[in-house]
Amino acid sequence: MSHNSFGHLFRVTTWGESHGPAIGCVVDGCPPLIPLTEADLQPWLDRRKPGGSRFVTQRRESDMARILSGVFDDGNGPVTTGAPIAIQIENEDARSKDYGEIARAFRPGHADFTYQAKYGVRDHRGGGRSSARETAMRVAAGAVARKVLGDGVRIRAGVVQLGPHRIAPDTVDFDAVYDNALFAASAEVVPAWEGYLDGVRKAGSSIGAVVALEVTGLPAGWGAPVYGKLDAELAAAMMSINAVKGVEIGAGFGAAELTGEENADAMRLGEDGRPVFLSNHAGGVLGGISTGQPLTARVAFKPTSSILTPGQTITRDGAEAEVRTKGRHDPCVALRGVPVVEAMAACVLADAMLRHRAQIG
Amino acid sequence: MSHNSFGHLFRVTTWGESHGPAIGCVVDGCPPLIPLTEADLQPWLDRRKPGGSRFVTQRRESDMARILSGVFDDGNGPVTTGAPIAIQIENEDARSKDYGEIARAFRPGHADFTYQAKYGVRDHRGGGRSSARETAMRVAAGAVARKVLGDGVRIRAGVVQLGPHRIAPDTVDFDAVYDNALFAASAEVVPAWEGYLDGVRKAGSSIGAVVALEVTGLPAGWGAPVYGKLDAELAAAMMSINAVKGVEIGAGFGAAELTGEENADAMRLGEDGRPVFLSNHAGGVLGGISTGQPLTARVAFKPTSSILTPGQTITRDGAEAEVRTKGRHDPCVALRGVPVVEAMAACVLADAMLRHRAQIG
Amino acid sequence: MSHNSFGHLFRVTTWGESHGPAIGCVVDGCPPLIPLTEADLQPWLDRRKPGGSRFVTQRRESDMARILSGVFDDGNGPVTTGAPIAIQIENEDARSKDYGEIARAFRPGHADFTYQAKYGVRDHRGGGRSSARETAMRVAAGAVARKVLGDGVRIRAGVVQLGPHRIAPDTVDFDAVYDNALFAASAEVVPAWEGYLDGVRKAGSSIGAVVALEVTGLPAGWGAPVYGKLDAELAAAMMSINAVKGVEIGAGFGAAELTGEENADAMRLGEDGRPVFLSNHAGGVLGGISTGQPLTARVAFKPTSSILTPGQTITRDGAEAEVRTKGRHDPCVALRGVPVVEAMAACVLADAMLRHRAQIG
Amino acid sequence: MSHNSFGHLFRVTTWGESHGPAIGCVVDGCPPLIPLTEADLQPWLDRRKPGGSRFVTQRRESDMARILSGVFDDGNGPVTTGAPIAIQIENEDARSKDYGEIARAFRPGHADFTYQAKYGVRDHRGGGRSSARETAMRVAAGAVARKVLGDGVRIRAGVVQLGPHRIAPDTVDFDAVYDNALFAASAEVVPAWEGYLDGVRKAGSSIGAVVALEVTGLPAGWGAPVYGKLDAELAAAMMSINAVKGVEIGAGFGAAELTGEENADAMRLGEDGRPVFLSNHAGGVLGGISTGQPLTARVAFKPTSSILTPGQTITRDGAEAEVRTKGRHDPCVALRGVPVVEAMAACVLADAMLRHRAQIG
Repeated sequence: MSHNSFGHLFRVTTWGESHGPAIGCVVDGCPPLIPLTEADLQPWLDRRKPGGSRFVTQRRESDMARILSGVFDDGNGPVTTGAPIAIQIENEDARSKDYGEIARAFRPGHADFTYQAKYGVRDHRGGGRSSARETAMRVAAGAVARKVLGDGVRIRAGVVQLGPHRIAPDTVDFDAVYDNALFAASAEVVPAWEGYLDGVRKAGSSIGAVVALEVTGLPAGWGAPVYGKLDAELAAAMMSINAVKGVEIGAGFGAAELTGEENADAMRLGEDGRPVFLSNHAGGVLGGISTGQPLTARVAFKPTSSILTPGQTITRDGAEAEVRTKGRHDPCVALRGVPVVEAMAACVLADAMLRHRAQIG
Repeated sequence: MSHNSFGHLFRVTTWGESHGPAIGCVVDGCPPLIPLTEADLQPWLDRRKPGGSRFVTQRRESDMARILSGVFDDGNGPVTTGAPIAIQIENEDARSKDYGEIARAFRPGHADFTYQAKYGVRDHRGGGRSSARETAMRVAAGAVARKVLGDGVRIRAGVVQLGPHRIAPDTVDFDAVYDNALFAASAEVVPAWEGYLDGVRKAGSSIGAVVALEVTGLPAGWGAPVYGKLDAELAAAMMSINAVKGVEIGAGFGAAELTGEENADAMRLGEDGRPVFLSNHAGGVLGGISTGQPLTARVAFKPTSSILTPGQTITRDGAEAEVRTKGRHDPCVALRGVPVVEAMAACVLADAMLRHRAQIG
Repeated sequence: MSHNSFGHLFRVTTWGESHGPAIGCVVDGCPPLIPLTEADLQPWLDRRKPGGSRFVTQRRESDMARILSGVFDDGNGPVTTGAPIAIQIENEDARSKDYGEIARAFRPGHADFTYQAKYGVRDHRGGGRSSARETAMRVAAGAVARKVLGDGVRIRAGVVQLGPHRIAPDTVDFDAVYDNALFAASAEVVPAWEGYLDGVRKAGSSIGAVVALEVTGLPAGWGAPVYGKLDAELAAAMMSINAVKGVEIGAGFGAAELTGEENADAMRLGEDGRPVFLSNHAGGVLGGISTGQPLTARVAFKPTSSILTPGQTITRDGAEAEVRTKGRHDPCVALRGVPVVEAMAACVLADAMLRHRAQIG
Repeated sequence: MSHNSFGHLFRVTTWGESHGPAIGCVVDGCPPLIPLTEADLQPWLDRRKPGGSRFVTQRRESDMARILSGVFDDGNGPVTTGAPIAIQIENEDARSKDYGEIARAFRPGHADFTYQAKYGVRDHRGGGRSSARETAMRVAAGAVARKVLGDGVRIRAGVVQLGPHRIAPDTVDFDAVYDNALFAASAEVVPAWEGYLDGVRKAGSSIGAVVALEVTGLPAGWGAPVYGKLDAELAAAMMSINAVKGVEIGAGFGAAELTGEENADAMRLGEDGRPVFLSNHAGGVLGGISTGQPLTARVAFKPTSSILTPGQTITRDGAEAEVRTKGRHDPCVALRGVPVVEAMAACVLADAMLRHRAQIG
């Protein structure tokens, strides 16, 4: 219900502004006795961290997360206690001086105007609360969620479209994602894409992208009917990520062009007597409940609105102005969005697991 | 939180199965003193009602809604009292005999398998709780939400893509929607589309479609940051509609191909000194908060899985089988989805209005 | 969150006014495969039903509950399906004519004034939404909750104080409660109490009372720390019952006079090696979590405000007036409150059971 | 919903253990543009702070709260921005060595046993999450809530009963509370009470108490019917405070002995034409909605279970044992409970204010 929380039973609340002293989150409802240390969080945070390559913002943050509560070592190593887990990262490289001009002018495509319109005040330093920096906490919470889900559930995402360039669906390879600076779900496209994105970057421009998600190892039965549908929860989680403008499950928008015959995923019995689907247009969800097939989704990111080309805008004092982003920025925000998409999926699924367990036992 | 409720302050809970005695909903949190009678609900329900044309299921339901609580006439006509509004529709034409075979076999593409997998039992009659019949209650609740929003907020949707056939964006005309049996957002396409859909229908097949949504008259400032984003709430609401597989806001998936320069919606001052956007790639939402521009979204519906062609499936007893839908069905579920999309948008916006008022005053 | 719902996972929403066409509730989140028919509800409803004796309102209602959804008979008898369970009772004996005067004047001690102050309108017929009639739906939901909890959890309540007359704690006998018209937790006091309450009734007066609650068969570990404490949830549930003005757990207000030595419940090991408490000042809850001992609480009811003595009041038009209750009423609302206290406890505990299962497995 | 959060729109989430590195809270949903600095929090925290007198635990904590987010100074002083407000206090004097024995043995009357029973693990250091230290964050959140409510709403509490010693209701003086180390609501009783409590303290014992609450300046109309009742929310909030065993509103348990005539609060018109109640047995709430009269409640605290007398208990390894509290403790926890009661009332009321504004405007 609150604006800065999500999840029902595995519930995450985040706080903090881009240029405040710190950002943090509280993960409540986590089951007890799960081994957890900061070392479980850091690898995921490192993937999202700025400064990793020339394709992401050059802001320097070590993004070292501290766990401040909810974990206790009673002799066998630190485990969750069932109490709320507070995680925190100090902000280090917050160059507020870069952002003087945007205190007055609303950057086009940013939340500057709407925050001001709603609240009558905004922390303009680096985008304040609307900065992508907030997503570090999603990644931290997602790392906890992964521990709740266990190793059997595998959550992977990757860039499958960079501007006009697409990876053919049958060549998508999620194993390639974290081996290239573009988070591309195919090693083959990397050289060409690097050249393309270098051009975008040097032009001071930016470009949109599509991130694909695949989750394997889900049992059939997670999720819930009607308004608690697993895909509805997933859609909200994805659409809540900065810069996301579209979400589709399984065949998605492509399903609009299919006939009933084409779209139906026939079922047979596997050798072990368990249901096997002969295709997966459903994307692993029917009636809001997991089928046991891979959960597949695609998420569209808009280009970052921080570009060097001056943009026409207005100021909070009611004057017309031009504004140009002088700060550091990402030429394609979707890249660092990949670990965020994974993290949000992990949180939604951990929540679904607990909710399923509650009702079904 | 509960599985059959949505909304935070304007909160709707629905209940009922396709072939049970009745379906209903409870709308809680409605402001008081709003004139409301059954006549306010019926026109919207009639638009969604089965049996209206050859393009929708021939099930016969008068869909007469009764208001059982929350409204009181103290001499000046019935008004809401702030108490929960219970709305109910009796089920009339529930031919359970049509559905004998599907008690055992899981219809491909339906929720039969997942309900059984989750609950160990399912009301198979006409799809039970997962039937599109449930959406009648969304429409009823949406009619109440429209009254809360008032006439200034105009919510319109229409089919803009039927299978492979698309309406060019610049010819979309929402005024045409309720004047044709296809709910098409253009009068021009109707003859051709009717021919196409007749072919689909006669073949016992079905086809997917895309519904566009446009809301005008919204003030800037509704919605909330981070996890309570207006577009995240809208995405969940849309994805919770039966057969929906994708949601996009503004430029949506198209934004993945845009550069930052193309995507930025420049701002100028209008003649009245108020902000004017020169384009609306954002779809009326920035940072999860309304900009005051039209809210635009597109929703992809899969083809109904009820088709005459026998489909390969399994039974709940673990045998392979073929199943063929003998009951009545819609050749394109998206058609009757149009008033549902509108209704869900109305509910999300009424909720956003109340939440905004709570925090901002 | 919504005003007319309670519970988190076992979630109950009620609707309906005293003199509207019907009252009802929706129970969402119920586990599947639990045998349930209307016959499971009726015995509990009959205990709360008006017209049962001269000590309760003479309004005549058969209070026949119908289950309209969420239950399905697939050949082995009706069971819950996991879908929302809608329960409904038609209002029969709604003599609106009795209530003409109170359309204008606010009855002292009733919610008339506050509803008008808040909403600017109220359904004054029989108290509308604030009528004790709403509690029938709590009892119906409680009956479902009992089925979720199973027979191992035994929930019993009874009147232990009627005005100035108290039952000595060591003579409280919950088995006696439903064998006497006063719901007294002792057969011995019945003759004297009947005489006393007859006097109150004949004088057109009313009197307060205290209801004690005892739940046995709870495991240790239900509930949750800090804000989700089992006793906090129970306190809210009890205080939400019409006319309740106080709630205490275990030693309650008496604990204010105890020393730490007196109050501590010492622990020993029982013959089976399980923990045994040598006393139960805690009332079965420590730190918000059940200890496995009996859960004990006491609930104070004020006298009904419906009395024959004219009371000084004001009208909604801003005039002073006198008002006298001419309708039927209960001389002691706490009597029919006994099954309501039990029902609310059942709902809180079913919810706690599901929440525990979610987090702990 | 989550276990460590409360409030619906003004929503507080707390985290942290007694002997962890820090404790903190996140206040979400706060309206923007409210001046707020750490200086607004500190006076309330100082009142609850340990070490202030010989009657409270001698643990030394400066309890200096830092605000880490949600406040921004745009030139006119720091104001809330509508973003979540994170507040944090470092733990300084966490002598874990004092608590070695209780790692194994469950202290009678504490949550040791139930945490272990529920979670299978517990942070035993100083009570971990169940320590009264958590209430510092309630006080911090309450200070924010007071700012939301404004100066017109005055929230005061004080000890009115210390063990067997009571302050006569007509001599209760809330102005005296913060002028004496006992938080007594009467200057006259202080010398005698100090002598009494010194005896308790020197004996290594403890004693219970009752805290009274009075809120003035509330408008009529806050709160909500049925399950969202203002008094139900208040009861839950109070019962969630460590050591609280009872809550009553207005006449409370005393109402059980009143007749309808005695209990009715007659209404007249005041000189300004506004409603005046001639008494306040209702405690300022009718039907769950505020009447505009003072909101009055009483809260019973049990004696702290930390006493020097050895208590019989068992260990987590299933052995019988004796345990004696060697750490520092409060002879009467209710004393420091006074600012906590006030804070919880402030939070409940700020939430009610926002909810009222949402539905009514």
